[in-house]
Amino acid sequence: MTINTANTRVLDIFRQAEPRIVDIQTALDVIPGMTEETILHAGAPITPDRMCASMRGAVAGALVYENRAVDLDAAYYLLDSGAVKIDSCHNHDAVAPMAGIISPSMPVWVIENVTNGARAYSNLNEGPGRTLRYGANGPEVIAQLRWMQTTLAPRLREAVLRLNGLAIFPLVAEALEMGDECHSRNHAVLPLLIQKLIPALLQSEYTSIEIDEVLKFLIGRDYFFLNLTMAACKSAWLEAEKVPDASVVTAFSRNGVEFAIRVQGQWFTAQSPIVEGHYFAGFTANDANRDIGDSAITEASGLGGFAVGGAPAITGFIGGTAASLMQAQLEMYDIAIAENNHFRLPVLENRGTPLGVDVRKVLETGICPFITTGIIHREAGVGQVGAGRVRAPIACFESAAQALGLVEVTS
Amino acid sequence: MTINTANTRVLDIFRQAEPRIVDIQTALDVIPGMTEETILHAGAPITPDRMCASMRGAVAGALVYENRAVDLDAAYYLLDSGAVKIDSCHNHDAVAPMAGIISPSMPVWVIENVTNGARAYSNLNEGPGRTLRYGANGPEVIAQLRWMQTTLAPRLREAVLRLNGLAIFPLVAEALEMGDECHSRNHAVLPLLIQKLIPALLQSEYTSIEIDEVLKFLIGRDYFFLNLTMAACKSAWLEAEKVPDASVVTAFSRNGVEFAIRVQGQWFTAQSPIVEGHYFAGFTANDANRDIGDSAITEASGLGGFAVGGAPAITGFIGGTAASLMQAQLEMYDIAIAENNHFRLPVLENRGTPLGVDVRKVLETGICPFITTGIIHREAGVGQVGAGRVRAPIACFESAAQALGLVEVTS
Repeated sequence: MTINTANTRVLDIFRQAEPRIVDIQTALDVIPGMTEETILHAGAPITPDRMCASMRGAVAGALVYENRAVDLDAAYYLLDSGAVKIDSCHNHDAVAPMAGIISPSMPVWVIENVTNGARAYSNLNEGPGRTLRYGANGPEVIAQLRWMQTTLAPRLREAVLRLNGLAIFPLVAEALEMGDECHSRNHAVLPLLIQKLIPALLQSEYTSIEIDEVLKFLIGRDYFFLNLTMAACKSAWLEAEKVPDASVVTAFSRNGVEFAIRVQGQWFTAQSPIVEGHYFAGFTANDANRDIGDSAITEASGLGGFAVGGAPAITGFIGGTAASLMQAQLEMYDIAIAENNHFRLPVLENRGTPLGVDVRKVLETGICPFITTGIIHREAGVGQVGAGRVRAPIACFESAAQALGLVEVTS
Repeated sequence: MTINTANTRVLDIFRQAEPRIVDIQTALDVIPGMTEETILHAGAPITPDRMCASMRGAVAGALVYENRAVDLDAAYYLLDSGAVKIDSCHNHDAVAPMAGIISPSMPVWVIENVTNGARAYSNLNEGPGRTLRYGANGPEVIAQLRWMQTTLAPRLREAVLRLNGLAIFPLVAEALEMGDECHSRNHAVLPLLIQKLIPALLQSEYTSIEIDEVLKFLIGRDYFFLNLTMAACKSAWLEAEKVPDASVVTAFSRNGVEFAIRVQGQWFTAQSPIVEGHYFAGFTANDANRDIGDSAITEASGLGGFAVGGAPAITGFIGGTAASLMQAQLEMYDIAIAENNHFRLPVLENRGTPLGVDVRKVLETGICPFITTGIIHREAGVGQVGAGRVRAPIACFESAAQALGLVEVTS
């Protein structure tokens, strides 16, 4: 197969994808290869000794949450003893934002691409502030995770099952018309989800008080939707990752030390960059961890930095100007081989967002993919310190091209 | 007072306004000058014999709804007999979209500008399709109005009272960051309201089924929010309309025959224009009534056509292109004397929307205010046939300038 033929196959799989929420289940019961000893993390595989402090902190918190350690000290000891099976989410058909920790007891979204049956998974987003995915791991973090497991997840599951396969991409597409780019801004898409969930809950046996508790948790936790978008994208690319000879990037993914791209289901990494950040009060660039999280699979799918021209209000969160975001938006068309059928930008007269980042085009143009992202503290236990904008490092693309022999000139 | 000093006072009143939802009450009980014989309509005052057919149809429907007529024939007879006190909404501190019919038994929003205590009123929006405000008046229209009166309004009132003065402009401002212009696109702002109302209802005595009925009515009825925005704008301008010597337009308003502007609380009219329309399947420009409704008070307040540069997705509803809407947006700055403090456009780097249309600037530049609007059928009983874009006729501004002596050159 030529590279271009392979890329066409890859994009056809994505274009035909129809990811739906089919269930909420326990990670251990549904994620392929998950065991009671496993902890999954964001980005390319990394050993505990090489992890950044915030990811180590999040793993330690997860071990306390799982009752495998009585406290954080014991958790770190356990982690360094080699008794924890550490692996990358992506290697288990899963994706998770920031530190990206998924442990066996956590409830996870089960997303099915009904076109080909591929299933992908993500955890439930904890919201802003001091949370595990941002490297925080104190008692209140663990308590909230347990409440999500015992109380939130069963109620949401009731709604999800009543909705009988809620399609995710149409909600994302609608939100793109409403100023979200659905990576770092999810302000429109969450209310759209809430408008689906609440009627389903009102028809259940749950009391008004129980429904109100769900609503109180959801409203304002905009990022709650992000994990759905990420798992939807993963499910859309899963079969495409098996196509040989392709030069299309199916995911950007960062473990906080290395920035990785996935091409033909393989990892190609470089040092993870520092994010150009917009910091919360009291924090500076000195506090920032290197770029982290699986969430940039959204960019590979034509969202986030690839849809940011339609989301000017995001400047209040990630910095920059509306004009600079539009400039980055237009640049992304130069490194993509197609335009998205799922996602369109009204401000560009409903042009599809750039889809299918081609390793060869990145190398030819020198234009690096633009990503919107959150920033976590470099130390464990603190949490989010800001949000910002980052470019994928060119070295990933160079090693992918070299390893896969992607030298053919683009048509 | 010089014109410029007067305008500064007018705009200060608007800038300081803080309209809040304080109650839902019966029109007869709260609207100043409302009587059991009164029917209010959109636009400048007009006698029944000069009304367009769709407004006459809506008045006739209201007379049936009020049990003043047994059927539409009897209603028309009653209307032409002179036994109905017909007046303009604006003359009673009220505003209502399209035909703009408010009759004594209808529930109305009570909006208070808490800065100065000014109260304004609007009816509850029926949603899309065959509805009274679009000139439809069949049994299903009347039945829905009665359900709104007996069932919807009391439940919403319960939520509204628990919210204890929900501020409207912040919701509108938030929606402007989400691709609404809050006249003809209200797709983001309604979910924001629903997220306020539902928790309040969940804390009430209403059952899940009763709450679900409210939610079923609200979701997707985007225009439901419009009446709140309109009444909020009216309450913000009410005291400003009493300032003499000003050349600022405080409302655009159409009765379906005449297009009117309000300056210093006075009406100045010209023939209402035909809307450049985007028609629903089966309808053409031949079916269109002339421009109608009080809703264009939103444009006078820096919304609608004055915020349309941030709402490119509206092209799917009103036609045009994103580029042409941005061009119209930028033109509006040339006829306004200030920029809005309440409403800003992220796409213009958070520039305030154009505020304070100056009669003199319209005449100097020849640029006519740009308005987004719905289109109703020219005959009674049909309903909405499309939506589109229209310019205010210059003749209103000419007669205002002449009558008020607005000849001073702008500073």
